[in-house]
Amino acid sequence: MTKWVYSFGAGHAEGTAEMKDLLGGKGANLAEMSNLDLQVPPGFTVTTEVCTAFYANDRKLPAALGIQVDAALAQIGAAAGRTFGDETNPLLVSVRSGGRASMPGMMDTVLNLGLNDVTVEGLASLSGDPRFAWDSYRRFVQMYASVVLGMDHHSFEELLDIYKEEQGHTFDTDLDADDWKIIVGQYKECVEREGGEAFPQDPAEQLSRSIAAVFGSWRNARAETYRNLHNIPESWGTAVNVQAMVFGNMGDDSATGVAFTRNPATGERVYYGEYLVNAQGEDVVAGIRTPRQITKKGRAEQGSADPSLEELMPEVYAELAENFDKLERHYKDVQDIEFTVQQGRLWMLQTRGGKRTTKAALKVAVDMVDEGLITKEEALGRIEPESLDQLLHPTLDPAAERTIIATGLPASPGAASGEVVFNSEDAERVASDGRKVILVRIETSPEDIHGMHAAQGILTSRGGMTSHAAVVARGMGRPCVSGVGSVRIDYARERFTAMGQEVKKGDIITIDGTRGQVMLGKVPTIQPELSGDFSRLMEWADDVRRLKVRANAETPLDARTARDFGAEGIGLCRTEHMFFDAERITSVQEMILAGDEDGRRQALDKLLPMQRQDFVELFEIMRGLPVTIRLLDPPLHEFLPHSDDEIDKLCKVTGLTPGDVRDRARDLAETNPMLGHRGCRLGISHPEIYEMQARAIFEAADHVSKEFKKTVEAEIMIPLVADKSELDYLKDRIVAVAALVESERGCKLAFKVGTMIELPRAALNADDIAQSAEFFSFGTNDLTQTTWGISRDDAARFLTDYIKKGIIERDPFVSLDRQGVGQLIKIAVEKGRAARPGIKLGICGEHGGDPASIDFCETVGLDYVSCSPFRVPIARLAAAQAFLTSKNQL
Amino acid sequence: MTKWVYSFGAGHAEGTAEMKDLLGGKGANLAEMSNLDLQVPPGFTVTTEVCTAFYANDRKLPAALGIQVDAALAQIGAAAGRTFGDETNPLLVSVRSGGRASMPGMMDTVLNLGLNDVTVEGLASLSGDPRFAWDSYRRFVQMYASVVLGMDHHSFEELLDIYKEEQGHTFDTDLDADDWKIIVGQYKECVEREGGEAFPQDPAEQLSRSIAAVFGSWRNARAETYRNLHNIPESWGTAVNVQAMVFGNMGDDSATGVAFTRNPATGERVYYGEYLVNAQGEDVVAGIRTPRQITKKGRAEQGSADPSLEELMPEVYAELAENFDKLERHYKDVQDIEFTVQQGRLWMLQTRGGKRTTKAALKVAVDMVDEGLITKEEALGRIEPESLDQLLHPTLDPAAERTIIATGLPASPGAASGEVVFNSEDAERVASDGRKVILVRIETSPEDIHGMHAAQGILTSRGGMTSHAAVVARGMGRPCVSGVGSVRIDYARERFTAMGQEVKKGDIITIDGTRGQVMLGKVPTIQPELSGDFSRLMEWADDVRRLKVRANAETPLDARTARDFGAEGIGLCRTEHMFFDAERITSVQEMILAGDEDGRRQALDKLLPMQRQDFVELFEIMRGLPVTIRLLDPPLHEFLPHSDDEIDKLCKVTGLTPGDVRDRARDLAETNPMLGHRGCRLGISHPEIYEMQARAIFEAADHVSKEFKKTVEAEIMIPLVADKSELDYLKDRIVAVAALVESERGCKLAFKVGTMIELPRAALNADDIAQSAEFFSFGTNDLTQTTWGISRDDAARFLTDYIKKGIIERDPFVSLDRQGVGQLIKIAVEKGRAARPGIKLGICGEHGGDPASIDFCETVGLDYVSCSPFRVPIARLAAAQAFLTSKNQL
Repeated sequence: MTKWVYSFGAGHAEGTAEMKDLLGGKGANLAEMSNLDLQVPPGFTVTTEVCTAFYANDRKLPAALGIQVDAALAQIGAAAGRTFGDETNPLLVSVRSGGRASMPGMMDTVLNLGLNDVTVEGLASLSGDPRFAWDSYRRFVQMYASVVLGMDHHSFEELLDIYKEEQGHTFDTDLDADDWKIIVGQYKECVEREGGEAFPQDPAEQLSRSIAAVFGSWRNARAETYRNLHNIPESWGTAVNVQAMVFGNMGDDSATGVAFTRNPATGERVYYGEYLVNAQGEDVVAGIRTPRQITKKGRAEQGSADPSLEELMPEVYAELAENFDKLERHYKDVQDIEFTVQQGRLWMLQTRGGKRTTKAALKVAVDMVDEGLITKEEALGRIEPESLDQLLHPTLDPAAERTIIATGLPASPGAASGEVVFNSEDAERVASDGRKVILVRIETSPEDIHGMHAAQGILTSRGGMTSHAAVVARGMGRPCVSGVGSVRIDYARERFTAMGQEVKKGDIITIDGTRGQVMLGKVPTIQPELSGDFSRLMEWADDVRRLKVRANAETPLDARTARDFGAEGIGLCRTEHMFFDAERITSVQEMILAGDEDGRRQALDKLLPMQRQDFVELFEIMRGLPVTIRLLDPPLHEFLPHSDDEIDKLCKVTGLTPGDVRDRARDLAETNPMLGHRGCRLGISHPEIYEMQARAIFEAADHVSKEFKKTVEAEIMIPLVADKSELDYLKDRIVAVAALVESERGCKLAFKVGTMIELPRAALNADDIAQSAEFFSFGTNDLTQTTWGISRDDAARFLTDYIKKGIIERDPFVSLDRQGVGQLIKIAVEKGRAARPGIKLGICGEHGGDPASIDFCETVGLDYVSCSPFRVPIARLAAAQAFLTSKNQL
Repeated sequence: MTKWVYSFGAGHAEGTAEMKDLLGGKGANLAEMSNLDLQVPPGFTVTTEVCTAFYANDRKLPAALGIQVDAALAQIGAAAGRTFGDETNPLLVSVRSGGRASMPGMMDTVLNLGLNDVTVEGLASLSGDPRFAWDSYRRFVQMYASVVLGMDHHSFEELLDIYKEEQGHTFDTDLDADDWKIIVGQYKECVEREGGEAFPQDPAEQLSRSIAAVFGSWRNARAETYRNLHNIPESWGTAVNVQAMVFGNMGDDSATGVAFTRNPATGERVYYGEYLVNAQGEDVVAGIRTPRQITKKGRAEQGSADPSLEELMPEVYAELAENFDKLERHYKDVQDIEFTVQQGRLWMLQTRGGKRTTKAALKVAVDMVDEGLITKEEALGRIEPESLDQLLHPTLDPAAERTIIATGLPASPGAASGEVVFNSEDAERVASDGRKVILVRIETSPEDIHGMHAAQGILTSRGGMTSHAAVVARGMGRPCVSGVGSVRIDYARERFTAMGQEVKKGDIITIDGTRGQVMLGKVPTIQPELSGDFSRLMEWADDVRRLKVRANAETPLDARTARDFGAEGIGLCRTEHMFFDAERITSVQEMILAGDEDGRRQALDKLLPMQRQDFVELFEIMRGLPVTIRLLDPPLHEFLPHSDDEIDKLCKVTGLTPGDVRDRARDLAETNPMLGHRGCRLGISHPEIYEMQARAIFEAADHVSKEFKKTVEAEIMIPLVADKSELDYLKDRIVAVAALVESERGCKLAFKVGTMIELPRAALNADDIAQSAEFFSFGTNDLTQTTWGISRDDAARFLTDYIKKGIIERDPFVSLDRQGVGQLIKIAVEKGRAARPGIKLGICGEHGGDPASIDFCETVGLDYVSCSPFRVPIARLAAAQAFLTSKNQL
């Protein structure tokens, strides 16, 4: 028979801290504390396997569970010296959920279980406190009714309020034992009336139904939402812990409290906690009474008159402090602890890893290395890479009030305030007056780059986490909230509405790109500060990791930011971003509108010196580091003007009529631009464009090579290749341009020509393509789009449904889909390496900055990841963790 | 050393007919005729490998070739009793191209080579005809100058015209030997003046430079175009044949002619050919003199006064007829033969498989089986499956004049004439008056289905071979010319222009969808007639093939056509096509515009009986055969109205405002609809749509099962699945609907639920998906789009460049891309069969009707192909050929 029940308490346990998958976090730690000989109220854990069986069996507990529960109950009784259901010496238990991952408050709890009309009297005489016993009973009835029978707690609160009013009482403390007895009677009637059955007097029935109810709460709406938000699989299930009750509300020698072994906000090495005398656990959390500080020091800092636990119960405090140290040494991490003092005796109720701010996490990790408690490698594992983002961007002052008018996707982290503007021209104009702006658009396009640069933050009503706005904003380090569906934008009237509120051009709003919130007015922000702990940890990460980390950058500003954040090169320079500059766009448009190759070449000649200067600056900033430059990728229609003003301006320069421009735009319009005339397809139709770009790269490389007396080796990347012949066609031309530049300038160029792998066909034919490609860079944005057949610009509306309905666990544009895209990457890596051993392999999609995806990159053995400049530190840490994980797995 | 030269003639040869790849078709057949002991002028073939070496070596012949050529020349001389370059007894040779596939007239030829100022005198005394000798010499100079030196032949024609004018001559025949001698002098001066070098007197130089020039003509513009049109790879190269000259213009006992061993137009078993007395080969082709019939019977039928060869040279004719029979028996096929009679002696110059009409090909194949010449299997291999298309559609009368005003892609075969209309409403209205219309659109969308149905043919200015217009037109059997870029359509003024010509609404045009031509006015057509030969051959194909052939059909008309053409079921019923019906579209739109699920359900309730009736009809027509029904696939915005009229109409029904409708349309608009909210994604967001469709299917299946007392087993197909969980989510609901229908109607339903495999991710995870899917149907249209990252709606503009530049050989939407899409299909077949042995596998993309793709389907072992009704016969034959091919390969 499967072992479904694991006992703990009284100095030994059947489980250990390692058994979290089976026992849940709480159960495993209760077992561990028992094994450490700490005072833990005896109890047992019903495993997560029972949860699985429960749901597989139409929400019924396995029949055989009862026997194991009975045996475990007897063991609790023996340890506690009481008997479940006994009239004079009744054992009371709590029934609590406890999953593999912490989901605080999301599931249900039943306390004081075992009370009935008879045992309540036993408890009364046992405790010598009938008021306590009847109060406990009424709490139990209410909890049971709510958790097991699904009744609304308002019914009970109402009864209590009416009773208090009738009796002229104000506070619960005004009620005595007899009052509570009457209340209990009313509660039981209420259960029978509204719950449809009598309140059960049989403690065994109370228990089995409560266990089932707590398992049932795994799938309540709150828990599901929480799991979705925190990526916790439903399949994990929860365990249920049944434990002897201890009471912190049995008089002034009783107390209850929570504590951290170090300060969770700052990481400082001081005990940090609160307690209440004569209270139950929920009272501390509920905030009705103001809790006191545990330590004298804490009290002093708070300037409180109430005594600390250290002062009030010095012996209990001494034991508690000893437990703190023991647990921290044992777990080698900050612990978040719950305890209860029952009539002078300390009981440890829970210990778990303490949640902390990123700043604290860094300090704790670094301190613990210095204390010799953990290794540097362990320290690296203690920091959630994503959490570093908090440190790299301005954040909203947590103390400040927020008037949230809409929420969307947290598309690019950080917070910013500014005047609302509705187009990029206004953004630039207002910003040039020294005012801060938030650019509000339905969605953004490459034409908005200058406006996004000028803005402090970006808000869009459409588009997902990988929409244009989101990707570009992350690249620039601008906060962005995208896909705010509830915002309705009216460009014509220059205003938007959200929650019935109208916001006009010029109004101030604040956006929090870390949380996806939009607020009215200016909310104060805190500037980031990269502490010494941060840089020490980063150094350790760099020592450990195998994967190189590069950045996706094209502007000098981005390149400098990337280098400052530790990027080891540029993995993706998107040359088209350089085309949108106000000075250049007209020449780009002229090129597009030219009727023939000659016309295009004339326009390209004007672009050449500008593009060359771009590359000179990039090579200078990144000197000594590799720079991968992707040739023009987007379809040409993205560059054409839309507004009448822009069209008129262009017509003046080119001598064309607005009709001509519109005709050409119509000719170039595409049904599915993502799958259209772009990438190398443009280069093949108009080789002169790529030739100009190649020339600009080579001339810049020669210039900077001479300047620094060190050869710049550019990596020229051809986008959207599906077949080797496409690459060959273009590589031949690039090599020819190189030969020409060499002979013109009398120089010797060093360069590589490689390709994006961003189409399934390219991955499948990587062996073939690797014969010509000197490197691969996995463009996982487009590879995800094509592998799944999902346009990321259009995905938000149905991917949300998918996640809600449990069809997929994570947005594949955010975290690399190993099962689909990952298979193609593996195939391409294997075939590519077989055809060209030592071929350089990297990733430059958005996934390059996602820790889970970086872990995948490590497992398939890529050489580097490339990500937004602001994600470089995250990637450095994630790469170190990935290396350690895969090493441990070997 | 590589053998580069293969001799033939004089009763033996180094090559055989099997060596076409090396010797080209012409060379291999000359060798074969020599081996058969037919009189062939001695000669040798320079192999296609030399062609490859020539291009690899910067258009230079391999140095070592000369020795082999010299040896072979000596052999020719020995056989002919002449010596190359000899003053008194000169050997003259021809230099002709000859590739693996016939490319008539595309490459260059040099005749009379070996003549110079000295040997011309030798030829004069040898032939006793100085005029003939000098005429031959001037022809040679001109040909050499044109082919080797690249001079324009006009220069020479001009000189000749001037000379004739000066001398008062009208015809070439007026000139005598001395005249020609003067002309030769002038020609040689012209060569020196304009060609930049003296005409070479050394026959060895003449020969080697001519061989190089003929190899060089493999890549001239005409040849490239021809290869592109006929899918002949450039890599094949051509061979070059050097052969002793024989002269059909050496007097009245000389002649030259061409003949077929059977009538190439009808297939009738009669010799069929033409000849000219005292003429060279090109004279027969050039059409300056009217050729005579070879047979008495032919002359009688033509009513000609000129004697036939049979009558004029009975001995030569007898030998020729004997050769015809010998060759036909040997090659077991109709031969196309060239011959020359030199002073009474018959020389065989060429034999090759005779090109013939499809009708003739069928008759010849079937007759030859009856004659015991070939097997039924061989007969099946004789018919190009694609060519059957000619028989299945009306074709333009070949005798009729065509005023072509534009050409586009041959998107759907057949020809039709009618009044031009520019929208589907007009198409329907005019057609309902009993008039014929051609629907002219920039491109079509699903809303045009009714207009396309009403029209005789469709013309679009945009879109490729697999655009919406092309796919739907092929499905309906309507002729279509798509992507006619030179046509500029002005919807507002209801006219289009092509080649400066304006065509207004109501003007009559004719389109030829087989050739992609657009013509002014009505061109008479010939109706198809499926002869007995056709049906006999089809029966043989059915006996042989393993692959089943189904049709893509949804209307009763299409289903009936499919069944008549031999379809063995429906492989793809696109339910959305049923939504565009005028009666229904409003309900569909109501559903889309409904604010919530209830509203959608109300609209769906109205659609249910109509959709059920659709399926009843389909099941009735296809009874006994499987029917695969795909649930709703396209994005909802495709169903919304666009014109103000349509919007107003909808608003009247729904009570919405036009603004609401436009808002909703804007909400639903997508950047890349192909990758958007469609397929199973719709079913998951709005399960009620698929539930209605499932119910309609089940109720119809039950109805027809009862009607025919035979269970209808529907195959329900979920589109655009990327992950098993999507299929599971929907399958659960479909199964639930089935259970409901069973209990409501007291019936037992039989059905399968399967999925399209049309996304790379689905193919890669086919093992997983096969756990839930009971069948797979490869949707290779979308699979090609996603594997390549190419939108077929936008592909035309760059795929044309690709094919022109040799980057790809064939449009992957027309013929399945084995290297990319094929890899995914193989993976899916293997994984799918491993997970669910016996899983039913089919293909329902456009490729299902493409013979090369069907061959692939055979090799990977699919169970069936499904194609447009009109392609069913093609697929049946192609499936038989594929089976035979793979059997031979085993």
